[in-house]
Amino acid sequence: MLKMKIPGIMSKKGSDLSKKAGMAPGTIAYVGEARAFTPWIDVIEYGPETFTEAHKIEPDHCPEEDAGPSLIRWINVTGIHDIEVIKTIGNKFGLHALVLEDIVHSEQRAKLEDYQDYIYLVVKMIGIDPKNKEVTTEQLSIVIKNNTVLTFIEDEGDLFDTLRERIRKGNKKLLISGADYLLYSILDTIVDNYFIVLERIGDKLEGLEIRLLTHARAADVQELHGMKRELIYFRKFIWPMREVVSLLSKSETLQIKGNTSIYLRDVYDHCVQAIDTLETFRDLSSGLMDVYLSTLSNKMNMVMKTLTIISTIFIPLTFIVGVFGMNFNIPMFGDPNGYNKVWIFMIVLVATMLIWFKRRKWF
Amino acid sequence: MLKMKIPGIMSKKGSDLSKKAGMAPGTIAYVGEARAFTPWIDVIEYGPETFTEAHKIEPDHCPEEDAGPSLIRWINVTGIHDIEVIKTIGNKFGLHALVLEDIVHSEQRAKLEDYQDYIYLVVKMIGIDPKNKEVTTEQLSIVIKNNTVLTFIEDEGDLFDTLRERIRKGNKKLLISGADYLLYSILDTIVDNYFIVLERIGDKLEGLEIRLLTHARAADVQELHGMKRELIYFRKFIWPMREVVSLLSKSETLQIKGNTSIYLRDVYDHCVQAIDTLETFRDLSSGLMDVYLSTLSNKMNMVMKTLTIISTIFIPLTFIVGVFGMNFNIPMFGDPNGYNKVWIFMIVLVATMLIWFKRRKWF
Amino acid sequence: MLKMKIPGIMSKKGSDLSKKAGMAPGTIAYVGEARAFTPWIDVIEYGPETFTEAHKIEPDHCPEEDAGPSLIRWINVTGIHDIEVIKTIGNKFGLHALVLEDIVHSEQRAKLEDYQDYIYLVVKMIGIDPKNKEVTTEQLSIVIKNNTVLTFIEDEGDLFDTLRERIRKGNKKLLISGADYLLYSILDTIVDNYFIVLERIGDKLEGLEIRLLTHARAADVQELHGMKRELIYFRKFIWPMREVVSLLSKSETLQIKGNTSIYLRDVYDHCVQAIDTLETFRDLSSGLMDVYLSTLSNKMNMVMKTLTIISTIFIPLTFIVGVFGMNFNIPMFGDPNGYNKVWIFMIVLVATMLIWFKRRKWF
Amino acid sequence: MLKMKIPGIMSKKGSDLSKKAGMAPGTIAYVGEARAFTPWIDVIEYGPETFTEAHKIEPDHCPEEDAGPSLIRWINVTGIHDIEVIKTIGNKFGLHALVLEDIVHSEQRAKLEDYQDYIYLVVKMIGIDPKNKEVTTEQLSIVIKNNTVLTFIEDEGDLFDTLRERIRKGNKKLLISGADYLLYSILDTIVDNYFIVLERIGDKLEGLEIRLLTHARAADVQELHGMKRELIYFRKFIWPMREVVSLLSKSETLQIKGNTSIYLRDVYDHCVQAIDTLETFRDLSSGLMDVYLSTLSNKMNMVMKTLTIISTIFIPLTFIVGVFGMNFNIPMFGDPNGYNKVWIFMIVLVATMLIWFKRRKWF
Amino acid sequence: MLKMKIPGIMSKKGSDLSKKAGMAPGTIAYVGEARAFTPWIDVIEYGPETFTEAHKIEPDHCPEEDAGPSLIRWINVTGIHDIEVIKTIGNKFGLHALVLEDIVHSEQRAKLEDYQDYIYLVVKMIGIDPKNKEVTTEQLSIVIKNNTVLTFIEDEGDLFDTLRERIRKGNKKLLISGADYLLYSILDTIVDNYFIVLERIGDKLEGLEIRLLTHARAADVQELHGMKRELIYFRKFIWPMREVVSLLSKSETLQIKGNTSIYLRDVYDHCVQAIDTLETFRDLSSGLMDVYLSTLSNKMNMVMKTLTIISTIFIPLTFIVGVFGMNFNIPMFGDPNGYNKVWIFMIVLVATMLIWFKRRKWF
Repeated sequence: MLKMKIPGIMSKKGSDLSKKAGMAPGTIAYVGEARAFTPWIDVIEYGPETFTEAHKIEPDHCPEEDAGPSLIRWINVTGIHDIEVIKTIGNKFGLHALVLEDIVHSEQRAKLEDYQDYIYLVVKMIGIDPKNKEVTTEQLSIVIKNNTVLTFIEDEGDLFDTLRERIRKGNKKLLISGADYLLYSILDTIVDNYFIVLERIGDKLEGLEIRLLTHARAADVQELHGMKRELIYFRKFIWPMREVVSLLSKSETLQIKGNTSIYLRDVYDHCVQAIDTLETFRDLSSGLMDVYLSTLSNKMNMVMKTLTIISTIFIPLTFIVGVFGMNFNIPMFGDPNGYNKVWIFMIVLVATMLIWFKRRKWF
Repeated sequence: MLKMKIPGIMSKKGSDLSKKAGMAPGTIAYVGEARAFTPWIDVIEYGPETFTEAHKIEPDHCPEEDAGPSLIRWINVTGIHDIEVIKTIGNKFGLHALVLEDIVHSEQRAKLEDYQDYIYLVVKMIGIDPKNKEVTTEQLSIVIKNNTVLTFIEDEGDLFDTLRERIRKGNKKLLISGADYLLYSILDTIVDNYFIVLERIGDKLEGLEIRLLTHARAADVQELHGMKRELIYFRKFIWPMREVVSLLSKSETLQIKGNTSIYLRDVYDHCVQAIDTLETFRDLSSGLMDVYLSTLSNKMNMVMKTLTIISTIFIPLTFIVGVFGMNFNIPMFGDPNGYNKVWIFMIVLVATMLIWFKRRKWF
Repeated sequence: MLKMKIPGIMSKKGSDLSKKAGMAPGTIAYVGEARAFTPWIDVIEYGPETFTEAHKIEPDHCPEEDAGPSLIRWINVTGIHDIEVIKTIGNKFGLHALVLEDIVHSEQRAKLEDYQDYIYLVVKMIGIDPKNKEVTTEQLSIVIKNNTVLTFIEDEGDLFDTLRERIRKGNKKLLISGADYLLYSILDTIVDNYFIVLERIGDKLEGLEIRLLTHARAADVQELHGMKRELIYFRKFIWPMREVVSLLSKSETLQIKGNTSIYLRDVYDHCVQAIDTLETFRDLSSGLMDVYLSTLSNKMNMVMKTLTIISTIFIPLTFIVGVFGMNFNIPMFGDPNGYNKVWIFMIVLVATMLIWFKRRKWF
Repeated sequence: MLKMKIPGIMSKKGSDLSKKAGMAPGTIAYVGEARAFTPWIDVIEYGPETFTEAHKIEPDHCPEEDAGPSLIRWINVTGIHDIEVIKTIGNKFGLHALVLEDIVHSEQRAKLEDYQDYIYLVVKMIGIDPKNKEVTTEQLSIVIKNNTVLTFIEDEGDLFDTLRERIRKGNKKLLISGADYLLYSILDTIVDNYFIVLERIGDKLEGLEIRLLTHARAADVQELHGMKRELIYFRKFIWPMREVVSLLSKSETLQIKGNTSIYLRDVYDHCVQAIDTLETFRDLSSGLMDVYLSTLSNKMNMVMKTLTIISTIFIPLTFIVGVFGMNFNIPMFGDPNGYNKVWIFMIVLVATMLIWFKRRKWF
Repeated sequence: MLKMKIPGIMSKKGSDLSKKAGMAPGTIAYVGEARAFTPWIDVIEYGPETFTEAHKIEPDHCPEEDAGPSLIRWINVTGIHDIEVIKTIGNKFGLHALVLEDIVHSEQRAKLEDYQDYIYLVVKMIGIDPKNKEVTTEQLSIVIKNNTVLTFIEDEGDLFDTLRERIRKGNKKLLISGADYLLYSILDTIVDNYFIVLERIGDKLEGLEIRLLTHARAADVQELHGMKRELIYFRKFIWPMREVVSLLSKSETLQIKGNTSIYLRDVYDHCVQAIDTLETFRDLSSGLMDVYLSTLSNKMNMVMKTLTIISTIFIPLTFIVGVFGMNFNIPMFGDPNGYNKVWIFMIVLVATMLIWFKRRKWF
């Protein structure tokens, strides 16, 4: 799980990716956050009329190959940091070394590889951590071989709980369809979750917009910048996802049957819509910096006008009274109305200036 | 109906889309503004020589399948928020579950799906609310099956009144053409309406341009930003529309006949023209922020010059008179022309400064 | 004729386009500037050995179909605002209703439509009004059917005078070539005229550049913005023109013969060159706003430095003399050199400050 | 030869191009700088074993057609401003009227035309004038017909001297290869020269970068703007060149033989590298304006801080001493320590302010 | 080895590339940094069961052609600045003159050339110099002919030490695979190293971001600009690399066998990921300049507010006390409470101003 907070992502990402440099290609080395728990395996088997479920079974007892005709088996592995577990399962299903390498490398780009007798997908789940309300990303590897769907997730999560519940409750469409429909259901769940994060960003953007247009504070720029970052990273995850789903929906692999294509096309439409919304948010947020700078300029103008009006009025007046503060024997000192004359002159001067400022629309 | 006012759109959009997360795919759930009225159905049937019309009929009485040879039937459903109504109609016409899901989901992107024996279109109507003069968007779903055209709109509206009137009055071209020509007439009406909104934006842009070039106020930035938003959203709606019409005009489906293609090509040309105008507005408005910032900078320059001229002239003078305000026994106090000499010195100083400012073109 | 002056274009454009909304498709309604004169028709017929010319003939007497073997007939209609005239001619040549609709709609995008037995082109002429030196645009519709070339222009103009003169004088290449070569000659004339407008914009840009780099005034921003507008609109007209000419030069329609392709390719090259020049101007002008803002900033810096130097020097001095203006019995008053000591102190202070400023390169 | 100095290029270019407007297409009219000298022709003939050279021969004596089997003839025409010369040569080689028109039109875009029995190329030479160190551009037209290579240059130049020298000295590869290898050698020379200009721009950019990052002056903005202009024009010349070379290297014309393709591909690689370098320079220079503006802002900040610190300290002090300059009978005047108390108060005040400024990191 | 420090790269690059201008094409001339050492050759031969290694052998003793069936020979040349060495090896393997020219020209763009019986690749290694921590780039030329892999590097380096170690230790996959798998291993090592540099840039970006958002200094702009430069150059190297690997993975040359494609596809995925990360960094860094400018503006606003508040309060007060400093016989002097009244007036004035500032949220 990768948190999209300000500095975290980059340094961590960098170090993870560079860790592989120098290793032999095909070396299966875990790249990702350090985790302590022991990975476990859950197995669900279902068909039009049967349903069985097994929790936390040992890797060695993980079933091999297919469950039986018209039975779908979904094997979910929670935790990819124990290389031995991944290797054991990989051997059972005859997965290519590069696939195993990718499964335990949690910094992949979404992709689809067709290995003739099975297909391998990497997708990115994006969600909001219920604890600290931060955006999190997690990598999901999916392998489909005949009627078996293998999924590998990084950490425990409840994203697929509703999907499992639907299987348990015997959702008809699911039960009578093949492994490809289960794949579709998984992808659909993931893409639907993108909109929750987009909604959150949209809400923030809205609040920011109102503040920036009215009384911008320096902290708002930080928030705007943080949001732009989120959008940049989100975009990096979501565009390859669109590609993967597009490939799947056009795919002529053995694993995807014709009548599932229309459903995958629907997921594709949702991906495109998520991208559309994302790009709209990017366009909106890129305009906001300009708005903020103009608000700042406007404020500065106000401040400077105030200073200029006050200075322009009182500096000459101070000079005038300074003149009569000189210790010369100034002729006007003899004039009994001298003091009043000075005041009259000063009042006329100020009035003239105020008219001049008024004409220039300074206030 | 979705109003494009400043913050509204985003939060609403977000929540609508995320509502679907967690539901089983294919679940038909209304996504959109809450509405209270009971949906109703209007049916028009016409042919070269006949015309019948039925208002506000019950969903159960909605006619099934075709009216008869060379008869076109247009069934319009107003209100998509009652799922039962949509399901009833969907069953009558054998529509796919995903189509029904899309019909009641009012936040779709314009798209075209070809289901062999019928085609399904989602398009976006953009108009101006006659009450509050705000830009509104509404989703229109169209299904064409043989000689029947099914349309689903979100709310009551008068956009198609003139089209219905033309049918009633027996527009010859319409009466002798097929369902595809009716589809063309509907799309043509929608695209023509885009230009009304574009005109409004153009008028605003023009007013803004004049103001920003002359005496920009802070409120103008808000208006400019609001207009950019409108353009961003408009663009998001209009580009997929262009794609849909392009696909239709090239389409080789059973529903679109060859001689209607040239008309659809005409709608496509209008779409492209609307996009051209939109992009022109975007180019113009993106230049305006720069203009505004330069106007602001110019104003600031003026303000600062005023301050600097006044300060530069009077601060040294104030120092000079301050010197003679000191309670020392300054030699010049004995000079009877001392006071006049000080004035002469000060006048010469001011004159020198004014010449210096003049040469630098400060005023 | 559409003038590209500051606010005019948009409001007019908007209203024209939205006028069509609500009309039945295929309705032939004039869209464009109001005009009072009666349209007229000029006919030129020529062949290798013959040449006849007829001026201002009635629409009803407009010749139909072809003049005879190896004779080219050029029918030019001046004025498209009288729908009856257009309809009469349309009927004579069997033009499609959509073509007639487009001919009288003066806000089209350049396009090419192939109707099997004739081709229809819309192109944009851009020129400079000899009276007020403003950029004007006019729409030209061209129909080619066998050996007849029909042209429709909005208003009287002298753009094609030299072309007609060449025919009259018996330009050999023109006389022995077909209608497609006449079409080429017309397009060549139009594209050559684009360069006159580009030259004018180039001249303006050059003047502006020199001014902005040296002593920018606020009015220059207005001019820069006006020029950017012109470029935006020019671009909108010229890109579709390029497409049309490209299609023509590759076209395999009956109307364009093989040996004319090479000439059309030449017009295409000129279009591309015009676009190149246009984009170069856009690049140049987009850099100018930055230059202007930096010039402004520089000026501001100068102004502020002046203020700061004067204030920093004289404000402390004023304080010092203020100290000795206090009515306390200050010890130094007893010192006969007190007054001189104060001056020495002040001179040292100013000298120190000047050195400090000098070191920081403030002047 | 076209100099890329600040205002020259545009006005000249504009007028040249617009000169053609109104002329009949195919009219051979010189477009370019006025030149006085009489054009001359140089002929080189070489084969595996022979080499002959003729200087400044008359157009009428220019050899026609091929020199003989396995002999390559290179005819170079210096000066394209005398139309008669061009026409004479054009007739000898049967060149199309449009080719002649293009040869004498020195404002062409690089292009390649295949006229079946010969190919015609326009390319742009870019170099540095050895006299005034300015960037110059010159147009080169090349015609290849069988074993003859015709080149047309605008003015005398030494660009191909080294190439001629290689032929004279009997470079083996050149002597045994065909006319297409000579073409390759010419193009290679031209593209290699692009890098000399790029180097010059790179040097300027480097100097500018250092200055802008440290002590930017207003003149630097002018230089930066001038360099951006050079890059814009360079780009306009070099992209079409890349296209031409790409077409040549893929070409299946009779004039280019298979084994020369690999050499042309090498020239193409150099073109791409030149474009890469150019785009890198563009990216770098576009970042520099931002750097300059931030440097300016920084300086302004410094200036304003200085002003603010001085003003904030001394303006209140001046007020305080002003209070005791009032001619009231202020109680403190009676206090013998009054004067010292005032000083103590003022020193405490200044110290407080300095601490405040220090905490805010103002200095 | 090319260091990406501020001015170095450009001037050096420029001069290197322009050096070739004027030389005959195909001239083998070293372009790159001056180097003094004598190039040497290392040879490794291995097969499923054998392994031999030879260090620093003479060019003349360099083995020719293949080692034997199922034996892979890797010949590595360190140092490309001695043209004779390159020519000797080139002759032994029958390399084309253009290939030799490219090998010794260290400023190439990554590319792939297929010469039927061998393929030639240029790739760019990017690393961090262990001594001065600067980013360095080095060119690597690779030739694959049957079972022999020829590599040419500019300078001694330890990048491939781990790869050689793997061969020595008898990595099974390597030993049983062909020359194409060795090529893959080399490319994989290079691309993995890109991530080390990306990590470094990411770390810098992170530090910069935090500083710019909080207390930006002028030096940070220099660092930001330097980082943008690094990204621009990195991008220039990495995009062509992606092309090369993509071509290789799709290649149907004799040198690349089908089952190596999947490995090359993996390297391609890493390239794309590096580009993704790079573009993300570019997006992030381009937003940072805006952030910096807004931080600067904000600071300026603070400074100006301070100045304005102090000036606005004390300048009028100074005027007031100045009035009573005049040597007139002001009536209030007679008032025993005069002095106190003045103070009361001044305190009320200041209080009013503070309230006014507070309301405008100036502090």
